[in-house]
Amino acid sequence: MSANPKEFLRQSGQLSAEVIQPFTASKKIYVEGSRPDIRVPMREIEQTDTHTDKGVEKNPPITVYDTSGPYTDPTVEIDLLKGLPDVRTTWIEERGDTELLEGPSSEFGKARETDPELAPLRFEHIRKPRKAKAGKNVSQMHYARQGIITPEMEYIAIRENNRLQELRADARYEPILRQHKGESFGANIPDLITPEFVRSEVAAGRAIIPANINHPEVEPMIIGRNFRVKINTNIGNSAVTSSIEEEVEKMVWSARWGGDTLMDLSTGKNIHETREWILRNSPMPIGTVPIYQALEKVNGKSEDLTWEMFRDTLIEQAEQGVDYFTIHAGVRLQHVPLTANRVTGIVSRGGSIMAKWCLAHHTESFLYTHFEEICEIMKAYDVSFSLGDGLRPGCLADANDAAQFGELETLGELTKIAWEHDVQVMIEGPGHVPMHMIKENMEKELEDCHEAPFYTLGPLVTDIAPGYDHITSGIGAANIGWYGTAMLCYVTPKEHLGLPNKEDVRVGIITYKIAAHAADLAKGFPGVQLRDNALSKARFEFRWEDQFNLGFDPETARKYHDETMPKQAHKVAHFCSMCGPNFCSMKITQDVREYAAKQGLSEQEALEKGMQEKSIEFKKGGAEIYKNA
Amino acid sequence: MSANPKEFLRQSGQLSAEVIQPFTASKKIYVEGSRPDIRVPMREIEQTDTHTDKGVEKNPPITVYDTSGPYTDPTVEIDLLKGLPDVRTTWIEERGDTELLEGPSSEFGKARETDPELAPLRFEHIRKPRKAKAGKNVSQMHYARQGIITPEMEYIAIRENNRLQELRADARYEPILRQHKGESFGANIPDLITPEFVRSEVAAGRAIIPANINHPEVEPMIIGRNFRVKINTNIGNSAVTSSIEEEVEKMVWSARWGGDTLMDLSTGKNIHETREWILRNSPMPIGTVPIYQALEKVNGKSEDLTWEMFRDTLIEQAEQGVDYFTIHAGVRLQHVPLTANRVTGIVSRGGSIMAKWCLAHHTESFLYTHFEEICEIMKAYDVSFSLGDGLRPGCLADANDAAQFGELETLGELTKIAWEHDVQVMIEGPGHVPMHMIKENMEKELEDCHEAPFYTLGPLVTDIAPGYDHITSGIGAANIGWYGTAMLCYVTPKEHLGLPNKEDVRVGIITYKIAAHAADLAKGFPGVQLRDNALSKARFEFRWEDQFNLGFDPETARKYHDETMPKQAHKVAHFCSMCGPNFCSMKITQDVREYAAKQGLSEQEALEKGMQEKSIEFKKGGAEIYKNA
Repeated sequence: MSANPKEFLRQSGQLSAEVIQPFTASKKIYVEGSRPDIRVPMREIEQTDTHTDKGVEKNPPITVYDTSGPYTDPTVEIDLLKGLPDVRTTWIEERGDTELLEGPSSEFGKARETDPELAPLRFEHIRKPRKAKAGKNVSQMHYARQGIITPEMEYIAIRENNRLQELRADARYEPILRQHKGESFGANIPDLITPEFVRSEVAAGRAIIPANINHPEVEPMIIGRNFRVKINTNIGNSAVTSSIEEEVEKMVWSARWGGDTLMDLSTGKNIHETREWILRNSPMPIGTVPIYQALEKVNGKSEDLTWEMFRDTLIEQAEQGVDYFTIHAGVRLQHVPLTANRVTGIVSRGGSIMAKWCLAHHTESFLYTHFEEICEIMKAYDVSFSLGDGLRPGCLADANDAAQFGELETLGELTKIAWEHDVQVMIEGPGHVPMHMIKENMEKELEDCHEAPFYTLGPLVTDIAPGYDHITSGIGAANIGWYGTAMLCYVTPKEHLGLPNKEDVRVGIITYKIAAHAADLAKGFPGVQLRDNALSKARFEFRWEDQFNLGFDPETARKYHDETMPKQAHKVAHFCSMCGPNFCSMKITQDVREYAAKQGLSEQEALEKGMQEKSIEFKKGGAEIYKNA
Repeated sequence: MSANPKEFLRQSGQLSAEVIQPFTASKKIYVEGSRPDIRVPMREIEQTDTHTDKGVEKNPPITVYDTSGPYTDPTVEIDLLKGLPDVRTTWIEERGDTELLEGPSSEFGKARETDPELAPLRFEHIRKPRKAKAGKNVSQMHYARQGIITPEMEYIAIRENNRLQELRADARYEPILRQHKGESFGANIPDLITPEFVRSEVAAGRAIIPANINHPEVEPMIIGRNFRVKINTNIGNSAVTSSIEEEVEKMVWSARWGGDTLMDLSTGKNIHETREWILRNSPMPIGTVPIYQALEKVNGKSEDLTWEMFRDTLIEQAEQGVDYFTIHAGVRLQHVPLTANRVTGIVSRGGSIMAKWCLAHHTESFLYTHFEEICEIMKAYDVSFSLGDGLRPGCLADANDAAQFGELETLGELTKIAWEHDVQVMIEGPGHVPMHMIKENMEKELEDCHEAPFYTLGPLVTDIAPGYDHITSGIGAANIGWYGTAMLCYVTPKEHLGLPNKEDVRVGIITYKIAAHAADLAKGFPGVQLRDNALSKARFEFRWEDQFNLGFDPETARKYHDETMPKQAHKVAHFCSMCGPNFCSMKITQDVREYAAKQGLSEQEALEKGMQEKSIEFKKGGAEIYKNA
């Protein structure tokens, strides 16, 4: 742990080159909304040309959803010591329902602010906290229910559409815009996401926009079943602590590879200061589990937790800008005995802390009994609930049991209470669940929690592959995402074994990008197959660089390719080391096409007349069609 | 490429230590059948004890399905130069329907046998080929349809049961034998696999036993929807050749990690000799794609292929002992034009070779027109068909199209013809398919191909993750396995990019073991949750070594753990680096249990009286239950 992150950053530079370099053949673009300060970032991937006997065919650039923030924009000067550019303050101020406080209202926040020993660790540009004016509610849900379309909502509509309207009007995209009709199990995904649709979904509670008024750096995004499936990543130090600058670097790394939100799960020292650095530099919404910090404040003795100090922690974090809180308010005293017969008891950290507290005091959880007071805090800063599944199953045997589903019903009750306060809610889900029992989780969540967005950890579909739990959970995540889960919490290969390193984080994220994208494809989200089609066309035409660049992880794809075909010449060869020239099916298919074309059966003709018809004709006439052509 | 594998093996030792060392805490056991020469190998994993305040609890050993062959049996002396012990010759000879030939019947086999230049490469102990006596049919399907239960069938029944009957009678296993009821989509999995059930499934064509009479080294296994889901792995040299000793090592490596069958897809030089080495040393059934070798014989010119030389290749390979042949007999001339409109045309190597041949000759595929003659060869050696899907989709856009499903219908017709000859058949499947379109593939296959076992490559559920296609395909594989696919062909991280190295092969296999096991769990195959329960119990009790040993890849799990918790002391600590002692939910749960026990709510009581009842009582009585207890 470096004692002074500021000194470190000034002396050693800010971020590793690998974390900050732009993606190959890519450029950052911004799509402007109805006002010039709505500038939605996207990444555009250039493609090379296709060379055929007929000449050169231009392949159009592909636009992809971009979570990486200003870090991949070479025109933005990054200074972690100052934090990211401000995206939202104008929007927040325009609404006229907030005020700046003189300083933190929480006791803990005040103490940290004035502790001289913390000076070296402290972020230098701490803003004054912003809070709703007395009697005001500043949640996006509140605006939505008033019929107000906020700039955040318009931003999100543009972001979700990913220029699809524009591409549909552009003839170059026609051949690669084909997409299978999806099966969305009753989701209601429109052909185009409008700002009004965003508003209506937020108003209905079917989607949330995690965007604390104290996190103006955030690039707004949405979590809901009728939008793109999102993924969450985690960082955080623990017993084996890492430094503030390492945590910030991990955050940027997560954004780079596609993390949509990030949870700071730190449990070590100085988590208040670490969080400030992360928030000021994060383009992604940040979530936390406030009970972790509360427990640190009582030196790990869960019995000593009190509502008052928990409340202080919520205010402390809300005033820093945390966008969503995991609150395990569904772990009620009555649920605890239901876990005694389990193979793995209670595996959620927050859940077990609260269970222990309930037993120690022989009383109902203070999170449950003070839930409405929590709502009051949430709506004063627009912090969203992520209602924690403290009793999620930690193994297959415990899946879908009375404890888990009992808690889920309680979360549904709490959702209704939060919505009475116009506070945004998502619901956390399992865990470890065999494949055939996953759908029940989604269906029960939709029913019990009134279609509030579901946010699941995997689920892992088997327990017996430690070291590969990104995969065991990626399978479950793809399935539950397809069934309707709005956000998938990533799992790395180190799950159950240790803390992930940078490469583990990348692997975990890409696995979850795959799961989320597979779910979008299966649900039939408009336009999502475009990138698949473009990459497959590139693959078929041996445009190796395009194949790498269009993938989720160009660096790894390029590295793997170069291991067996190291020379540049191989990247332009019309075959590869896997099969060699005679066995290259792609090459043979091209020969087949050319052959067919020479016989008068051109591709164009095939497209125009429909090959199926041709085939029927052919069946009737026998093999003569080629001979006579 | 070493010029003399025999010299190499004599001088450099035989197999790497990593390939051959027994698994930690494991021993090879053999379960004997109705006769002493039916000895079914399994692996038994020892567990450590659980230490509680109440004393020491013994955890029973866990038996797992074992594909690794004699290589992990320290009592067997391995000599690759001699090949594996003979498992089946007595059984084959007892049937009295085969005879030994003087030498190979194929022209190619004869030429290779006498070529002096090949002497250094040649395996030293080549047996005389065995063939059915004139008019005899030696397929397992033929025996099954005669009502004969072969020793192979009994062996398989024992293997599939994995000692479940025995464990059910043993009280130590009771707590970890709990299992969720599955959803098998109409499969018919009995509670216990009997030899008669194996026979009836093979007779009905719903399962195959790939076991050529010239591969007596094979440890019999079965591929069918009502048995454990299997996985296939691939090896094979290509343009970038590897040596014979490397290919043999790769084969043993595949068996070690759980490959159930192995396809030798070599397309380079000396594939006849390489195949001999592999067969003589493989405990797994071996599959090939004979058209690859045939194409080598005509120097890569598919137009020059003829039925006569293909026939010679089939006999050559059948007499070496290949257990199943991929034959792309469903690629008919009428199907070829259906692919012209595709994004990626024909991506199967065999499919494209045959398509090119059909077009070049303006005529029907010789594989299709000579199909009955192929059946005659198959039944004389008991080679099973793996009817190739030469027109499988190579990208999402082409999934489930007219070409793919047209071919599938043809494969169904061919299945019926093969069954008229009592020849065993499985059907190959895609490919690239979005999640929501996977089930249609399974349903169509069951219907069109009359419930012949399905054997699929993935399918990949998105095209945009080169470098991670073991994962994109593992998701599809788990799903299609659940829906009823009998065997899953593995995909490595290098798919689409290059040739896999040893670590890629391991990752590919483990990914597919996960998919297959997840499918077994979802289908509710009897007893398969035992290992999950045991591992989860070990995880919950911080028995780290047991957690590693019970997993699919103990080495990787241990390595990952040691990266963040290197010291031996950490492996016995009741917490880990991930959360630290105060945040360890597992530790807290144990505290909760102990606390509850002290309050009179013992685990035993919970188990006996049922916790749900307790909870209802508790709800009524409020928090007093603990106070009064």
